[in-house]
Amino acid sequence: MADTNRGVVYEGPGRVEVEDLEFPKLELDEQNHRKLEHGAILKTIATNICGSDQHMVRGRTTAPAGLSLGHEITGEVVETGRDVEFIKKGDLVSVPFNIACGRCRNCKERNTGVCENVNPARAGAAYGYVDMGGWHGGQAQYVTVPYADWNLLKLPGDRDRTMAKIKDLAMLSDIFPTGYHGAYTAGVTTGSTVYVAGAGPVGLACATACFLLGAAVVIVGDMNAERLAQARSFGCETVDLSQHDDLGEQIAQILGTPEVDAAVDCVGFEARGHGREAGGERPATVLNSLMDVTRAAGGLGIPGLYVTGDPGGVDENAKIGQLGIRFGLGWAKSLTFATGQCPVMRYNRQLMMAILNDRVEIAKNVNATVIPLEEAPAGYQEFDKGAARKYVIDPNNLVGAGV
Amino acid sequence: MADTNRGVVYEGPGRVEVEDLEFPKLELDEQNHRKLEHGAILKTIATNICGSDQHMVRGRTTAPAGLSLGHEITGEVVETGRDVEFIKKGDLVSVPFNIACGRCRNCKERNTGVCENVNPARAGAAYGYVDMGGWHGGQAQYVTVPYADWNLLKLPGDRDRTMAKIKDLAMLSDIFPTGYHGAYTAGVTTGSTVYVAGAGPVGLACATACFLLGAAVVIVGDMNAERLAQARSFGCETVDLSQHDDLGEQIAQILGTPEVDAAVDCVGFEARGHGREAGGERPATVLNSLMDVTRAAGGLGIPGLYVTGDPGGVDENAKIGQLGIRFGLGWAKSLTFATGQCPVMRYNRQLMMAILNDRVEIAKNVNATVIPLEEAPAGYQEFDKGAARKYVIDPNNLVGAGV
Amino acid sequence: MADTNRGVVYEGPGRVEVEDLEFPKLELDEQNHRKLEHGAILKTIATNICGSDQHMVRGRTTAPAGLSLGHEITGEVVETGRDVEFIKKGDLVSVPFNIACGRCRNCKERNTGVCENVNPARAGAAYGYVDMGGWHGGQAQYVTVPYADWNLLKLPGDRDRTMAKIKDLAMLSDIFPTGYHGAYTAGVTTGSTVYVAGAGPVGLACATACFLLGAAVVIVGDMNAERLAQARSFGCETVDLSQHDDLGEQIAQILGTPEVDAAVDCVGFEARGHGREAGGERPATVLNSLMDVTRAAGGLGIPGLYVTGDPGGVDENAKIGQLGIRFGLGWAKSLTFATGQCPVMRYNRQLMMAILNDRVEIAKNVNATVIPLEEAPAGYQEFDKGAARKYVIDPNNLVGAGV
Amino acid sequence: MADTNRGVVYEGPGRVEVEDLEFPKLELDEQNHRKLEHGAILKTIATNICGSDQHMVRGRTTAPAGLSLGHEITGEVVETGRDVEFIKKGDLVSVPFNIACGRCRNCKERNTGVCENVNPARAGAAYGYVDMGGWHGGQAQYVTVPYADWNLLKLPGDRDRTMAKIKDLAMLSDIFPTGYHGAYTAGVTTGSTVYVAGAGPVGLACATACFLLGAAVVIVGDMNAERLAQARSFGCETVDLSQHDDLGEQIAQILGTPEVDAAVDCVGFEARGHGREAGGERPATVLNSLMDVTRAAGGLGIPGLYVTGDPGGVDENAKIGQLGIRFGLGWAKSLTFATGQCPVMRYNRQLMMAILNDRVEIAKNVNATVIPLEEAPAGYQEFDKGAARKYVIDPNNLVGAGV
Repeated sequence: MADTNRGVVYEGPGRVEVEDLEFPKLELDEQNHRKLEHGAILKTIATNICGSDQHMVRGRTTAPAGLSLGHEITGEVVETGRDVEFIKKGDLVSVPFNIACGRCRNCKERNTGVCENVNPARAGAAYGYVDMGGWHGGQAQYVTVPYADWNLLKLPGDRDRTMAKIKDLAMLSDIFPTGYHGAYTAGVTTGSTVYVAGAGPVGLACATACFLLGAAVVIVGDMNAERLAQARSFGCETVDLSQHDDLGEQIAQILGTPEVDAAVDCVGFEARGHGREAGGERPATVLNSLMDVTRAAGGLGIPGLYVTGDPGGVDENAKIGQLGIRFGLGWAKSLTFATGQCPVMRYNRQLMMAILNDRVEIAKNVNATVIPLEEAPAGYQEFDKGAARKYVIDPNNLVGAGV
Repeated sequence: MADTNRGVVYEGPGRVEVEDLEFPKLELDEQNHRKLEHGAILKTIATNICGSDQHMVRGRTTAPAGLSLGHEITGEVVETGRDVEFIKKGDLVSVPFNIACGRCRNCKERNTGVCENVNPARAGAAYGYVDMGGWHGGQAQYVTVPYADWNLLKLPGDRDRTMAKIKDLAMLSDIFPTGYHGAYTAGVTTGSTVYVAGAGPVGLACATACFLLGAAVVIVGDMNAERLAQARSFGCETVDLSQHDDLGEQIAQILGTPEVDAAVDCVGFEARGHGREAGGERPATVLNSLMDVTRAAGGLGIPGLYVTGDPGGVDENAKIGQLGIRFGLGWAKSLTFATGQCPVMRYNRQLMMAILNDRVEIAKNVNATVIPLEEAPAGYQEFDKGAARKYVIDPNNLVGAGV
Repeated sequence: MADTNRGVVYEGPGRVEVEDLEFPKLELDEQNHRKLEHGAILKTIATNICGSDQHMVRGRTTAPAGLSLGHEITGEVVETGRDVEFIKKGDLVSVPFNIACGRCRNCKERNTGVCENVNPARAGAAYGYVDMGGWHGGQAQYVTVPYADWNLLKLPGDRDRTMAKIKDLAMLSDIFPTGYHGAYTAGVTTGSTVYVAGAGPVGLACATACFLLGAAVVIVGDMNAERLAQARSFGCETVDLSQHDDLGEQIAQILGTPEVDAAVDCVGFEARGHGREAGGERPATVLNSLMDVTRAAGGLGIPGLYVTGDPGGVDENAKIGQLGIRFGLGWAKSLTFATGQCPVMRYNRQLMMAILNDRVEIAKNVNATVIPLEEAPAGYQEFDKGAARKYVIDPNNLVGAGV
Repeated sequence: MADTNRGVVYEGPGRVEVEDLEFPKLELDEQNHRKLEHGAILKTIATNICGSDQHMVRGRTTAPAGLSLGHEITGEVVETGRDVEFIKKGDLVSVPFNIACGRCRNCKERNTGVCENVNPARAGAAYGYVDMGGWHGGQAQYVTVPYADWNLLKLPGDRDRTMAKIKDLAMLSDIFPTGYHGAYTAGVTTGSTVYVAGAGPVGLACATACFLLGAAVVIVGDMNAERLAQARSFGCETVDLSQHDDLGEQIAQILGTPEVDAAVDCVGFEARGHGREAGGERPATVLNSLMDVTRAAGGLGIPGLYVTGDPGGVDENAKIGQLGIRFGLGWAKSLTFATGQCPVMRYNRQLMMAILNDRVEIAKNVNATVIPLEEAPAGYQEFDKGAARKYVIDPNNLVGAGV
């Protein structure tokens, strides 16, 4: 094990750089020396760029310069704390982006997305966010994972079998469970018709999950033609939101009826208007349009990020996360709304089984694209421009860019 | 059976009158002569005044003058259509306020609150609303109920036993299931701490349901001292929202923590601000405060009415049912939101069993108060002024005002 | 519409014949003249031979000679009773094999498999069984369906589209929902490993459903090599129960562990032993082996038929449906057991959507084989010998044997 | 903290004695020196005698002489291992009888009753059983609890408040959650009619849980008049099984119908026959009678113990845990069966909240009776004779026999 470490650092709006980082230790940070004997150090095999990272890089969160980024981590265990009993050095593991203690009420109730202990400020923690516990990001060669026995999902079988599926397995840390959570909490099941807002990686992962859940028809909406083509590549119907300002009509052209059984918001607060209003940011557009196109008694899954504070919000309301929602419409249709971070641990083992047994091609569907660590800043830029790709950083050259 | 009929009619904002009505027939109306061979005619035993009626009477809906009111009906079957097979003349029955066909997808899936067939305009029908199918109201001596075998809940046992509990059983048509639905969909279960917004009849019914569901602590909030006293009469904790502008602090004084496990909105869109802002209407106040006081991973049940159009809304947004909701706050806490009309049929049989076997005193808890039909207009006025009573109209003098 | 009718009749153990039948009327039978104004008469398009029919034909039930057989019916509506409001003449429809009233508590709670009204003897009714209400069987050119608005699933879209999928849609009346119910109640979901006992049509339908539910690995066990080959044709793993007496070992060879997440009994009471005991009937074999191979906290779905009386039972206990079950084993593993007839209406619409949108090939997976009505007796014989086919009778030559 | 320890030891069929024991250490046992840095040592406040202990003492299990007994433990933390982070010395805690690691798949899925790691022999561990991991029993002054952060439920609030409810809180370690689990998994909810087999402590706890879940009528069956009187003391209906051999008729006398919505087996394998057959042991009696009296589509909860091996079984089948079950009857009614040890952690916090907020009087309902440690053998004898009491051992004289 080397004792050097390099990783991706946020240096201010629009700027990420690859820098030398301190090698991880089994402690939280220098200030409080909170011991992490329950933790493990991983050598990172794959670590993806996520849309949530983009929110930060665009300056749309309160993240400070100097923050190491990354919360989608797959790696090999190189060291374990003395209290780690079941995870072993040499294990290949997937890391849920939510950090959870495995000992609080929320963890015991499977709500690991809002663990009460790991983040002192509020329920919920993650790697690479200043307001989610201050944990180091994972877009680095090495990273520390606390409560390793609880948090880590061991990738079973021999190393070759795992590495052959590594681009798929890399999606278990966030977007595949997140998309699945959106679909599942929206009530997607056998025979459902579904509208997925957003054809970015989470939207595509959600569409993939919809099919895995048995959906009959999955319609994906976006304004990015390349991403819509990606959605069609695995059987989705698509609607181009820049071409029309009535989503219901677009859906009716496909289904014969303007409503779907369930809808999922994979966009979040940085939404833009539809049709003629596509140029401006309209933070409630997605929510309002989903209520419009979901049938009575249907469900909305909302994994797309909504924030409590948005320095770049379009108006005073948006800056405090207050949106103009046509709530009466949703109420009249008896809709349900499920919000928040996906509790990854609820789903990652099952999705891993589906991957390992060839039931789903998540990497292909999201167009996973491997890049070396040093190209991460370029990856951020391309992704921000709307590339129909999910960038997988390969910080230790273990995956290979040609994969 | 007499062939005369009198009932309550809406005659414009602030005005309800008792008038002669046509005697019900087993058909929808004169214009389309749609036959109701599946229907029954009831002699009304008890028919309650509801907060939703108040919304209409205050001119806050699109209801026209001349509308017969009332959707909370308990009665005796006096005639059945030729296709009614299991409900018999002489049966005492409770009528769910939602009218449902029992033959569409939503009915088959237990979502009778959004039946697709009974109301041609949109999913969902009820008695006494112009936009819910145009069915005659039930605050009358006689009323027609369609799809009688499906819609009617037979009150079993002998007539004396039923009449001895009639004030309790009268709550099965709406507020008891509605309050229960709010609590149930909020996730209230054994040991829950719950905040119920609103100490009107639905709020009190909801608090009653919370205890029936096993809640450990039920906190009811309102600005009406008399209604809060009513809530305390059966074991609720209370907070006076006019005295404080931080609900979390008020809850912390009771629980030692500012958050509850679950919260229920029994107020709806005609909400006012808290504390110093209590004078003005603030349609999103309840929703925003519930998100504030509900713990991460908790649930919000929202049986309180939100509308798609409100002629009396405080601003342009309110007039189209668009509210300024701090959605980012709810999202950060991974909250779920369940909205809409209660599908009464999902709960009424079970609640009837609880009543008949002395497990719950719903009439006492909501302070059910029997009045003759001719006093209905006075009842509307008292209720509108905030009386801590649930008015039960006795249009055929079968219950007795002294009960 | 012709007024002649021919159909399949049970004439005693081992004997079925095609005979002239009375043309259906909208009444129950001549004796009680119970009117069926809520019913419809169908011209049968497809009507399948089922394993439950075989139980009768083998003399393993109390069915009397003269009984018309068949409960898997797809057809065209040729007449409706006066109370039928939403189903129209000319509609193509799938008929759930359970007959339900749509008006009793069980129907309202979606338990249509145990409707309380249609069969006076006990909860639950079906076509073509003497002890399930005495309704005429559907392996005939014409058949009566009561409570048509409730029971019938309308096949949407144009007739050509429907007829192009008719062999798949024919499986909606019983085996596809039945197999799905078994899988669903066993807890099969994304990533599950499943063992399905029995590679007959229900077992194959169940395996198909497992994949639709997202299962990672589906292992089917049987002793019939041809049926096992059929299971492998669509991605199942298989075990030949005649070759081994330790199912756990056979499973371990596939999974690396002797236990699955969930197991489904698609065999029922006419089970035989495993390995060296394969020659004799062992009615509890399947249940005991499923408990053995299901992991702790797992679930067993049991759609396979178990009876309260079996004239051909191997011993006195079997004759009254009493089996020697290793219940302590199941208890030690905290297993759950879900039994009984599938309530088809809970699943058929969703599965129809999956068929119509090309998500599943149920006809191919069960090897649906169309035969003319007159060849039904031969079909019964072939099926009884273990043909790896699901026979679809085409009584009005609408499907075409070449399809 | 003293370094002496005394506790209850099984010394062979019919014999338990109070003996000096080694003082607990934070390690598993001398042989393997498996470290328990994640464990805590408790000074026992209350530790109850359970029916499962009786099975052992009667020689109906494979327990060897020398085994320390007891798995129902409430105590004060006197020492914690170095890896324990959230539980602190001085905390008063309730201990679930199932020992769980909090790190395996089953624990993560809330199935702590079948933890995969703590018991090497098979899924599921408990204190004081030789075949459940070999952990020391808790009917002692001091006891070790592994994985303390995961397993222990902290009793909040000040010590006086906790001690004032200690007899109620002592029921959280086993029988209250166990009875609740039986009721919950049987589907007991608002308005249910329930039959509970057995009026021992688990049966009475189950009946208490039924009311907490909102049941309308709870009928308890037993042959012990004193225990039946205890059931009536808190509102249950009762049937004396020694007086009648048709349970359905007994139920019909109470309900007017011979069936209930849900039934719970709180007896297990040491059941006796009903009526004239009450003298002999009939291990399948309870299961068969529950199927008989549960309505179609109902549920059976089966927390009563069934074993895989019973040295004292009435016949060869019983000795291997094989019972003659009328499975066809259950199947015809579409019943569901939920078996196994209660995963206490799923329920204990909620039930604690109900106790602390005066919603339930579990100690009174089960007639909790405090005895000093030295009287434990007498307690075992009285309990075995059928005393209508739940014996709570007070090994450190902290509760006081007069409470």
